[in-house]
Amino acid sequence: MKTSFSIRKAKASDMSAVLNLIQELATFEKEPEAVIVTEEDLIKHGFGKVSLFTCFVAEVDNQIVGMALGYPRYSTWKGPTLHLEDLIVTDSFKGKGIGKALFSTFIRFGYKQGVKRIEWAVLDWNSSAIDFYIRQGASILNDWRVAQMDPKAMHQFISKTQ
Amino acid sequence: MKTSFSIRKAKASDMSAVLNLIQELATFEKEPEAVIVTEEDLIKHGFGKVSLFTCFVAEVDNQIVGMALGYPRYSTWKGPTLHLEDLIVTDSFKGKGIGKALFSTFIRFGYKQGVKRIEWAVLDWNSSAIDFYIRQGASILNDWRVAQMDPKAMHQFISKTQ
Repeated sequence: MKTSFSIRKAKASDMSAVLNLIQELATFEKEPEAVIVTEEDLIKHGFGKVSLFTCFVAEVDNQIVGMALGYPRYSTWKGPTLHLEDLIVTDSFKGKGIGKALFSTFIRFGYKQGVKRIEWAVLDWNSSAIDFYIRQGASILNDWRVAQMDPKAMHQFISKTQ
Repeated sequence: MKTSFSIRKAKASDMSAVLNLIQELATFEKEPEAVIVTEEDLIKHGFGKVSLFTCFVAEVDNQIVGMALGYPRYSTWKGPTLHLEDLIVTDSFKGKGIGKALFSTFIRFGYKQGVKRIEWAVLDWNSSAIDFYIRQGASILNDWRVAQMDPKAMHQFISKTQ
């Protein structure tokens, strides 16, 4: 049976459902404790005076079952780009084309703006996601690694380099 | 002999020298043809009505010999973060502590803002850069891959999914 769904821009009142999706993805990615963002944070950061991200949601019967969330970045080689931070469909609604529709909405959103690239990160063991992205025409760059400092590492670094 | 240098925020008039550094890095990273950004683009994107990035430069005798450039990102797990897009010291001034001083300036800039993470990308074969970042306390995430679509791939994807 075909599932009927619709996609629209998220509102502040969707952030509770969006946070549930974020938590579901973190658990899938084996980092269930990593989410410290709250619903209030998402409302403040996405719908305050300055909006730090754009979010689209997928709905089935007025229930939010998926989302795509991203923000602008800048390439010193290419110019303005867009980053897809999260593309999530809740487990029980996977395999119905909702993820592809959200992805398509996001790619069209970026293309319309004229960004020079759309970029995102994917876990190397998530082969079904990687296969999906390749099928849509994305390139996977295998030779780049992500480096990070959390606030504790920043603080230690700063203390040592007075 | 110790080289004396100073670090300051970049001005629009520095973008010509900054573009030279960007081109130098692209050549080092084996993609000399990849830079399509112009000096005018950098001025417009960094010093226009909306600033898409923040740039610091290192000077020796009024000559720009290095730069650190970054912009805000957003983590749905952590909240507001900062991305270090480029950290570059021109070849003839490497090994004098200028890269570390630029890195330190950028980390302090982010820490002061209270960002929840500072993140950047590094090529897996650039072991001297990776060793440097690890020595400063950064974590290297080996299981994430970067996926990208350029405007041509976006256009092809959109054409196929009308």
